[in-house]
Amino acid sequence: MIDEKVINAIRVKPGKKVNLADYPTTWAVTPAVEKLSKKKAKSRAEDILAASRKELEAAQELLYASDTYAVLAIFQGMDAAGKDGCIKHVMSGVNPQGVQVYSFKQPSREELDHTFLWRCQKVMPERGRIGIFNRSYYEEVLVVRVHPELLDYQRLPPGPRDQSFWDARFEDINAQELHLVRNGTIVLKFFLNLSKEEQKQRFMDRLDEPDKNWKFSAGDVEERGYWDQYMAAFEDMLTHTSTEYAPWYAIPADNKWASRTLVADIIVNAIQSLGLEYPKVSDEEREANAAARRELEKEK
Amino acid sequence: MIDEKVINAIRVKPGKKVNLADYPTTWAVTPAVEKLSKKKAKSRAEDILAASRKELEAAQELLYASDTYAVLAIFQGMDAAGKDGCIKHVMSGVNPQGVQVYSFKQPSREELDHTFLWRCQKVMPERGRIGIFNRSYYEEVLVVRVHPELLDYQRLPPGPRDQSFWDARFEDINAQELHLVRNGTIVLKFFLNLSKEEQKQRFMDRLDEPDKNWKFSAGDVEERGYWDQYMAAFEDMLTHTSTEYAPWYAIPADNKWASRTLVADIIVNAIQSLGLEYPKVSDEEREANAAARRELEKEK
Repeated sequence: MIDEKVINAIRVKPGKKVNLADYPTTWAVTPAVEKLSKKKAKSRAEDILAASRKELEAAQELLYASDTYAVLAIFQGMDAAGKDGCIKHVMSGVNPQGVQVYSFKQPSREELDHTFLWRCQKVMPERGRIGIFNRSYYEEVLVVRVHPELLDYQRLPPGPRDQSFWDARFEDINAQELHLVRNGTIVLKFFLNLSKEEQKQRFMDRLDEPDKNWKFSAGDVEERGYWDQYMAAFEDMLTHTSTEYAPWYAIPADNKWASRTLVADIIVNAIQSLGLEYPKVSDEEREANAAARRELEKEK
Repeated sequence: MIDEKVINAIRVKPGKKVNLADYPTTWAVTPAVEKLSKKKAKSRAEDILAASRKELEAAQELLYASDTYAVLAIFQGMDAAGKDGCIKHVMSGVNPQGVQVYSFKQPSREELDHTFLWRCQKVMPERGRIGIFNRSYYEEVLVVRVHPELLDYQRLPPGPRDQSFWDARFEDINAQELHLVRNGTIVLKFFLNLSKEEQKQRFMDRLDEPDKNWKFSAGDVEERGYWDQYMAAFEDMLTHTSTEYAPWYAIPADNKWASRTLVADIIVNAIQSLGLEYPKVSDEEREANAAARRELEKEK
């Protein structure tokens, strides 16, 4: 399990203006961790990840059996921040029946004909399940904010498109998440915090290595040109939507092993802290079970 | 069109504690209307309804063509209050492609595995459409409040089930409706306000008249036994969820002709007050259209 100080350092404090410069993008999150060599840190992280994955498997089964809570884990981050890899490496050991992953890409015509929360609302995880959103309604205050011309496709009623417009979106998002939490969905939000340098390196790798080529699209470099606008949008998003009930974690994403380990640890912790137990069998049920056993034994 | 004073008398003022005794259940809503004979009032109401239905047909077409707003009309009321009949008589003239009616009955297992708003969220009307909810998420603060044992099926996290619990539901509902309104859905809510005497009469009719028999179920009389608890639940619902952006109308429901006329008038008014216009054809489009015409004329 990861030291609470590390988790505290990356949990975005609610109600405080966020400055991304305060959040590291590398594994060296706290002075104590920084003292380790990178090699040692990586090997420790990999041990923790292996343990967390086992615990997550058990935690998900308990979540399913106790049938009271759901978990919603939202992943946001720049291109190449490692969202897909993180989901793959953290969730791979878990029974797929207990996990629902949704990747939100460009909205369809039908989706644009509804409010911006709708396409996510309708696939919210069921009780007992872990829902993973690879991107989400937060795109509505990120890519849409950086490219406000996308709003034209939403055919919204007339009105100003200033800060008050984005504040209303933050308010609607917070209300939706409060509704989820009140009714038993644990909401965990991961911002994979990548440095501009590391993004360049990963893009270069995608161009150089044949089996990574398919991951690259020229549009990615175009979006990189809006880096500062994206960082401003992320900062405003984190400032307004990190809440006590649904906090954001600014996950350092320059080292994939570090981000995966942190995400796994946070999800496991959240489920374990619910103190769930397997449903107890009542005396009556025990008796009925014994009768069923006798019935089965009578069969030739 | 109905006198604004009549509409004002039945629009539930936001932020004021509601006493249902202040809202009439019969057609005689204001002193001016009261002065008319019942026969005269009925004949006038029927004229207005006929006119409103024509206007509604046109209004819905404009709503569809201008493709910016949707309308959500929610119907709540006791058994035999006339919800089905009202929907039938008000909406019958409208192009069914532009209307989506959903009747919410006992929730399914899948629905119970989600938050209480979910089954309604996923069928919210598209831009350009009128969505009709015959019952809705408001059942969650009505039948569920009168029979709190129904909460057991929802497997909610532990916590008090006192006023604060219902207040949280009101808050979630208001936030969802504000989100809709902000993004272009007009929300109209109709409480069909039936007297206890008239309900008895209608139940008797259902028992006496062979072709109404199918509408009666013994459970209806059982629910009637909870009349006072239901009225208290309706009062608290109206008090907390009639808002400037999504008002409740306490529609007098003892005279079917009166309630239908009022509902039709309110829906027509809401759409007309948007000041919609058919999309204008630009000069470029006009030119492209002329070219298309020439192409068609060339055909042998």
